[in-house]
Amino acid sequence: MNASPAADSRLDETIRLGHGSGGRLSRELLDGLILPALGPAGPGQMDDGAIFSPPPGDLVFTTDSHVVTPLEFPGGDLGTLCVSGTVNDLAVMGARPLALSLGLILEEGLPMDTLRRILESVGRTASASGVRILCGDTKVVERGKGDGIFVNTAGIGHRIHRLEASRIRPGDAVVVSGNIGDHGFALLTQRKGFPLESPLRSDAAPLFDLIHRLCEKVPVRWMRDPTRGGVATALCELCQSQPWSVTLTENSLPLDPAVRGISEILGLDPLYSANEGKFLAVLPAASVDAALEILRSHELGGNAARIGTITEDHPGKLLVATDFGNARVMGMLASDPLPRIC
Amino acid sequence: MNASPAADSRLDETIRLGHGSGGRLSRELLDGLILPALGPAGPGQMDDGAIFSPPPGDLVFTTDSHVVTPLEFPGGDLGTLCVSGTVNDLAVMGARPLALSLGLILEEGLPMDTLRRILESVGRTASASGVRILCGDTKVVERGKGDGIFVNTAGIGHRIHRLEASRIRPGDAVVVSGNIGDHGFALLTQRKGFPLESPLRSDAAPLFDLIHRLCEKVPVRWMRDPTRGGVATALCELCQSQPWSVTLTENSLPLDPAVRGISEILGLDPLYSANEGKFLAVLPAASVDAALEILRSHELGGNAARIGTITEDHPGKLLVATDFGNARVMGMLASDPLPRIC
Repeated sequence: MNASPAADSRLDETIRLGHGSGGRLSRELLDGLILPALGPAGPGQMDDGAIFSPPPGDLVFTTDSHVVTPLEFPGGDLGTLCVSGTVNDLAVMGARPLALSLGLILEEGLPMDTLRRILESVGRTASASGVRILCGDTKVVERGKGDGIFVNTAGIGHRIHRLEASRIRPGDAVVVSGNIGDHGFALLTQRKGFPLESPLRSDAAPLFDLIHRLCEKVPVRWMRDPTRGGVATALCELCQSQPWSVTLTENSLPLDPAVRGISEILGLDPLYSANEGKFLAVLPAASVDAALEILRSHELGGNAARIGTITEDHPGKLLVATDFGNARVMGMLASDPLPRIC
Repeated sequence: MNASPAADSRLDETIRLGHGSGGRLSRELLDGLILPALGPAGPGQMDDGAIFSPPPGDLVFTTDSHVVTPLEFPGGDLGTLCVSGTVNDLAVMGARPLALSLGLILEEGLPMDTLRRILESVGRTASASGVRILCGDTKVVERGKGDGIFVNTAGIGHRIHRLEASRIRPGDAVVVSGNIGDHGFALLTQRKGFPLESPLRSDAAPLFDLIHRLCEKVPVRWMRDPTRGGVATALCELCQSQPWSVTLTENSLPLDPAVRGISEILGLDPLYSANEGKFLAVLPAASVDAALEILRSHELGGNAARIGTITEDHPGKLLVATDFGNARVMGMLASDPLPRIC
């Protein structure tokens, strides 16, 4: 019997199509939930665009859409992931993250509480990365035309370190900042019907601070965050069309015991599994000890290791040297045994 | 019986989950379809990020996700829309568009031909706007978890004109660059079950060139592109919490006869209907004639008109003066009679 207009305008418990209309409901969602949840890392208001003054020099621009399922998982959630992913893309290009955008595609019926938790996570991770969310946009699609929340985060960074594949030379070392495959395997164990219990957690984390400390002290040549496709795909992309190869040493790969166990049981190779809080670095062999010391003294680099070398046999190929003294060639991930991990 | 690996790696006729894996299929989609379709406006390659050197001064950063349905409609398609939307958001902030990102979320089963046409449209519209697509990302979701294609375009522009609501004064004029509501009404007529035939076409177009010509000659105070929520919502947002009001003159609103007809039959107000190739400008009343001359001599401003005035009664409100000598107050669009128009 309550037909007052106010009854229609309160924040409902789930997302409705009208929240994407660009009208009054959109404004209420923005002011009542989105901006408060993002907190101080968020924009004061979300206008059509944000004005900012970058420091002089080169900028880096990157974008990533995130369609991970489930939205929340051990070690993180979509919010941690979408900020970390873009911050890390900037950081491995040698850039200090300056600004992120946040493009939300919400499915009708999404619980407001879920949206709030994810956005709080966005705000927390952005604050931890020292980056501001400068602008955003929210769209809503009908039930059954989306899947909870999809997020796009584009990012702008200020380039402060020169990291380029063209600087790599045979003899350089390949280092990884920690255990391989944690994110992909943690997601795998959360999927419907997965038969094993595991203590695995996603490694999703923003890496700029760690990368910046390393690059200030060590002449890093090149970096990459091995997300979808894993370490193997990132290194295949690196060496293809180069006059050198990458040789990994199989027994040097740092692996969580649970990842090792599940990979042996299921026959999945952690080298193809996604990471969301690790980077690969190529640096002069003489700098490996210094690099590992810096990495291992940081909470996000505890299990850093040298895993390989830039070699000259089989140019353009990624090789894995086994314990038995032979080497196999690895290609890029062909397809994906586990879709929607990021 | 053909079990060669090559059979698996050709570009299929529809999108598969593996195209979002970040591995070999992703690379084939990128090199075989996405980059060729984008053409010269696209990046030479899609790396984790793109390095660019902006001119000195302030930048503008904006983002928009596009979930329009249908993907193709009279006057444009998702590709026209996603570039125009972001270019226009930059342009109405007084910025020359420099760089766009392109984040694709594709649904499993999407025909490759549809994707190609949309991306060709992205490339064409970007070229026409003088903007480059610097970076991108492609994700794939399972059939029934998306709706064909969702696109996010974030944009960076170089601020060259100062356009700010704080510069508006009572007595200033409100101008629109052409017919109101064409995009929303054109989409409406394409929806399943719409009972009338109409010649309506979306107005989706990039407006930077027109806006730049105008701002070079006329002291424009403020601009906005009245997309979702339409002219009325954009002007409500403008005047709320201001010490002045906006008064529109109902009989001055430029309307396509088909929009007028449909709006009368269905009782839909074109002032709440989306536009994707129009802008609102507030400028000194003395500059109206010069502004209209510049606008009307451009192919995208043919039906430009003065539609209202900044007034002092009822501060914070949007008023519409009718032919009968009275005025009504208009609020923001409450909800959306037509979801997913952009």
